Formats: sequence, C-alpha cells, structure tokens
Amino acid sequence: MLDNAAHTSIEALGEFGLIKHLTDGIEIRQKSTIKGVGDDAAVIETGDDCMLVTTDMLIEGVHFDLHYAPLKHLGYKAVTVNLSDICAMNGVPTQITVGIALSSKYTLDAVEELYAGMRLACEKFNVDLVGGDTCSSKIGMCISITALGRAKKEKIAYRSGAQNNDLICVSGDLGAAYMGLQVLEREKAVFKENPKIQPDLDGFDYILERQLKPEPRTDIVRILEESGVKPTSMIDISDGLASEILHICKASNKGCQLFEEKIPIDHLTAQTAENFSTMPITAALHGGEDYELLFTIPLSDYEKIQDKKEISVIGHITDQANTYYLVGKGGQVAEIKAQGFTAF
Amino acid sequence: MLDNAAHTSIEALGEFGLIKHLTDGIEIRQKSTIKGVGDDAAVIETGDDCMLVTTDMLIEGVHFDLHYAPLKHLGYKAVTVNLSDICAMNGVPTQITVGIALSSKYTLDAVEELYAGMRLACEKFNVDLVGGDTCSSKIGMCISITALGRAKKEKIAYRSGAQNNDLICVSGDLGAAYMGLQVLEREKAVFKENPKIQPDLDGFDYILERQLKPEPRTDIVRILEESGVKPTSMIDISDGLASEILHICKASNKGCQLFEEKIPIDHLTAQTAENFSTMPITAALHGGEDYELLFTIPLSDYEKIQDKKEISVIGHITDQANTYYLVGKGGQVAEIKAQGFTAF
Repeated sequence: MLDNAAHTSIEALGEFGLIKHLTDGIEIRQKSTIKGVGDDAAVIETGDDCMLVTTDMLIEGVHFDLHYAPLKHLGYKAVTVNLSDICAMNGVPTQITVGIALSSKYTLDAVEELYAGMRLACEKFNVDLVGGDTCSSKIGMCISITALGRAKKEKIAYRSGAQNNDLICVSGDLGAAYMGLQVLEREKAVFKENPKIQPDLDGFDYILERQLKPEPRTDIVRILEESGVKPTSMIDISDGLASEILHICKASNKGCQLFEEKIPIDHLTAQTAENFSTMPITAALHGGEDYELLFTIPLSDYEKIQDKKEISVIGHITDQANTYYLVGKGGQVAEIKAQGFTAF
Repeated sequence: MLDNAAHTSIEALGEFGLIKHLTDGIEIRQKSTIKGVGDDAAVIETGDDCMLVTTDMLIEGVHFDLHYAPLKHLGYKAVTVNLSDICAMNGVPTQITVGIALSSKYTLDAVEELYAGMRLACEKFNVDLVGGDTCSSKIGMCISITALGRAKKEKIAYRSGAQNNDLICVSGDLGAAYMGLQVLEREKAVFKENPKIQPDLDGFDYILERQLKPEPRTDIVRILEESGVKPTSMIDISDGLASEILHICKASNKGCQLFEEKIPIDHLTAQTAENFSTMPITAALHGGEDYELLFTIPLSDYEKIQDKKEISVIGHITDQANTYYLVGKGGQVAEIKAQGFTAF
C-alpha cells in the first residue's frame, strides 16, 4: 500500500512537478550562478558574457521509437532539441557533450549512424562536440546531451519577464511535428498487421521532417538581434503552445489572450489533422515537439518585427494573473489548459 | 554474420576506442573551444578564466548495483565522480546538471533519497545544482551528470603535459574502493544463498566508504595552488593506476618507471586483499574507482610537496615512449599493462 501511494505521487506530480519537488529550496552557493533550475537553461556568469547550460535525456521507448526514427535522424534531433533550449534563452549555442548508453543489440554501424546525425547537427549549427561518454546498457538506448551557449547578460530572455500588454509572438508554424508523428504511428500499425505492406509516407514530407528532424531557431535569435528587439520572455515549444504559454504566464505572474486565427498552422498540418479527425488548433496547442520559439516583446517593438515572415503575433499578455484565454475564430472565448506530454 | 562482425568490433574497440573512433576527426568551429574530446574534461575559454565541462553516465546493473549501493550514497557518488574529473584538470568544480531516468518501480521516497545524496555532495563541495531532467525509463535507472568547473587557463593540467624526469605523484591511497567492492560482492552472494544471514561488514568501514562514497580531491587542487606547484599533467584514477598512468604517458608520448614500494596502500586494503588471495599491488594497479589524483610535477618542485602527507611520489617520467615499468619490492622489473574496467 505504501509503495502504491508513493508511486501515485510521482505520477501525480508529473515531470515538472517532480523536478520542482526535488530541487525545491536548493541553495545557490556560487556567485557565478545567476539562474539555476527552472528555465530552459541555467545561466552562469563568465566575465563579460554568460554561459547557458541545459541537459536533456532521451530514452528509447519513451522519447523515441526506433521503428520509425532512423538513427541518424535520432542523433540529429537529440542535438537540435538541446540547441533549441539555448535559443529559448535568446542565446547562441556553442558546444555540446554527449552521453550514450547502448545495449549489445546495437552494432558499430548503428552507433556510427547515430553519431553521424549528431555531427551533422553540430556542423549545421556551428557547435562543437567537446565531450563524449559511451557505455553499455542492459536494455535499450539512453542518450543524454548537455548543450552550452553564450549570451550577453542583458540579452538573456527568461520565462519570467513578460509584461502587461506585451505582444505574444511565435516563430514558424505549429502542430506539424505532432501530425507527422500520427502519420508515422499509423504506418507502424499497418506494418505490424502486415509486414509486406510498405509504409505510405508520400506527400507527408514537411510534417515528417518536422517530427524526425526538427531545427533549432538560431535564425530567430539572430533576426531579433539584428532588429534590435530584446524579447521580454522566451521559451521553446517542446510540449505544445498551451503548456508553454502557461509557463511564461505563471513565471511572469501574468495572464494572456491568444487568438486562434493568428496561430500559424501549415496547410499540410491542417489537412492531415482533418484526415485524422483532429482539430488543427488542437495539434498546435497540445501537439508539442515543434521546437519553435514562443516569446513576448513590448508593444512598442511591433514595427520592428511586423514584416518578418518567420514571426507571427498571436496575442498579448494581460495583467490578470491566472487567466489564460483563447479567442476562437467565431469570437468565443475558451480557457487554455496544459495537456502537454508528461513523461510519467 | 555481418551483425556479429560489427558486434565484435564494438567490443574489440572498448570504451575508449569506441569514443575515439566516433569522435575522430571532429572539427572545432568555436574559437572558445580550447580542448574538446580526449581529456578528463573539455576546456572552454570564457573571458579571463576557462570553463571545464565533463559528462558521465551511470547505468544500473553496469556501474552500480542497488543491492548494496544505498540510493543516497549512489546520488552522492554520481556527483563526486564527476567533480573528480574537474579536479583532474586542476580546476575547481562550480555547478552540475543532473538527468535521471527511472522506471516505475521507484517510489518518490527513492528519488528523494537519490537527490538527497546529490544535494549533500553539492553542499559539501560548494557546487550548485543548476539543471535537472527527470523522465521515465522502461527498465532500470540511468543517471547522467554534467559537471562544470573553473580554472585559469595557465593552471589547467592536461594529460599530455608530462616531461622527461617529472615526478609521478598520487594523492591518498589506492586499491581500497576495489577491496570494498569485493567485500560487498561476497556479502551479496552470502545473502542470495541465505537471506536470513545479515551481511557482515564490521571492521570494513574504510574500504566500504571508499567504494560507496568516494570524495573528489578538491583539497589536492588547493594544496598544489597554495604550494605554488602547477602539475605538468594530471588525471583522476577511475580505472586503476595502471590504466591512468598509461593515459598520461601515451598522451605525453613518454614512458614511466613506478616503484611498487612507493605506491600508497592502506593497511585494511592490504589485509583484505590478502584475505581474498589478491595481491595488494594488483588492487592498486587495476582495481579502479579510487578517484585519487595522479599527476606529474617538475623535479625542481619536489621540495614544495615533500612534506604533504596526502601526496606520495611513486616514480618518474622517462623519455622512452612506450616503455612503462614497475620496479618491484625485490628490484624485479615488470611491464605495466592496463587491465582496467571496460564498460563493454
């Protein structure tokens, strides 16, 4: 009974709750630690600049499925989702370290493929792979990546900086990675029923790529810099727009109002969602794994970003803490709730 | 057949060989990256100082056995072995990030114990826990820790800096952690045979503690600093003295001569080794997990360290690359070969 009770409470806490519970009241002892647990990355003062540090683990069967994620794509994605966390602080990724645990079912070829994907991501985003640990695992694969990045102290965008009337902006489009996953899951199910049927993935390139090979938005960090805009808050969208805007609002003690018609959704995403009897807005709000940047900027900076095709203004921050609204296309108002992916 | 061949080659490469194979020819693109893969930690230039970065993974059933490693000790050790890698660069550890994957068999109490151990280590060694990722695993526990540290660029001790005639020094004593493990394994075997028999661990405190709760030698880094000694090369002893001195010699393209009678071995370690029909010197050379520092200093610095009871001079570096000798107590000469732990 006791065991069950304790089990329940890990599940009840959820991933964010568990981390908060475990790291609650942690004292900061080093002067250089500006921000510890609780944002996309930690911030460490190092002379004129700051270093950003973030760690993520990817577990086979939980975060990825080798039935449809080719190892090279997996390596690429493992790196880029971490670089995305550096971007989400308005920083520039610079280095990564990699830890991989492998069971004996993997051949040298397989590990080489995985590393080839990681090295490709490093090359593309101008990042150095500076440390590696490889060891055996009794079962399955576990990848842990730590990404480092740089930012000027005054440029760093925390989750907690959103102000009343700030514009809420998002890069790219949302929901595509989720719909890509649905297509992959469907074809996997078909394949399991009849291994002679080849997966039918034709025409789904964009959403499959968004699922299998997400890109960190280093370009957005650069565009903001060049436009002279410093976001008041920022986060990357790993768990879906709804979950992430709530993180910003809660950390900033503010509310928000989003407009459904402003939320950028690609045509193929919408079409696929309809084929799966899913509302496109649901994929955008709760799908996750978009790795786009969600950020707030002062209203006065609107002109600086209004002609950037990669950035959409989707709503604004309000002073009403704990009220999170989505205004539908017909004008109806709904409350935004997080239904994102929970790893427990 | 092809699969088997590839399997064999991962095993044949071994842990170090595999990492070298996978990271071979990696280009460095960031000006700030001073040292990438290949030492105890990567070195990144950050203004006046450098940041040191190291990652390690610990896998249940490979690196630890929860039959005898209490979770609090495991958390403590997971942190301290990483801090040891920072010390091994002659640096001061400052921050860590933690990733933990857990299967559902662990209760909240268990995770709290693990974190309590990690937090205790952070407190003791004045380090901040700045990032945490916790997720579920299908089976077993996987802990990944990244440690950060600081050092002045000119103080950093690489493996590759040993010079002809340098003195080879080691901190503390060797072989204790290995003999502690032998005692734990014996008692586990007895317990498996008859669960009613309580483990008999009386009198083994020192070697058990060395196995279960190793300490990073931050004090040695401080003593060297205060004594005005900059080691020409340094490494920490995780895989046994033999394996580590070979790392230094190969990276420095030098040889070495060690003297058996100079190698520090605690009385209890020697006594236990004899009870297990093991030569104490074998435990010291090949046992591993001592987390002591092995380093070289110029002969001219001998007077600065000769009265430090925590430091033993155990031999010297020679100009004869590829010759690694141990002079026995009777004057006989043996070649030193690595027989350390290989994770594959």
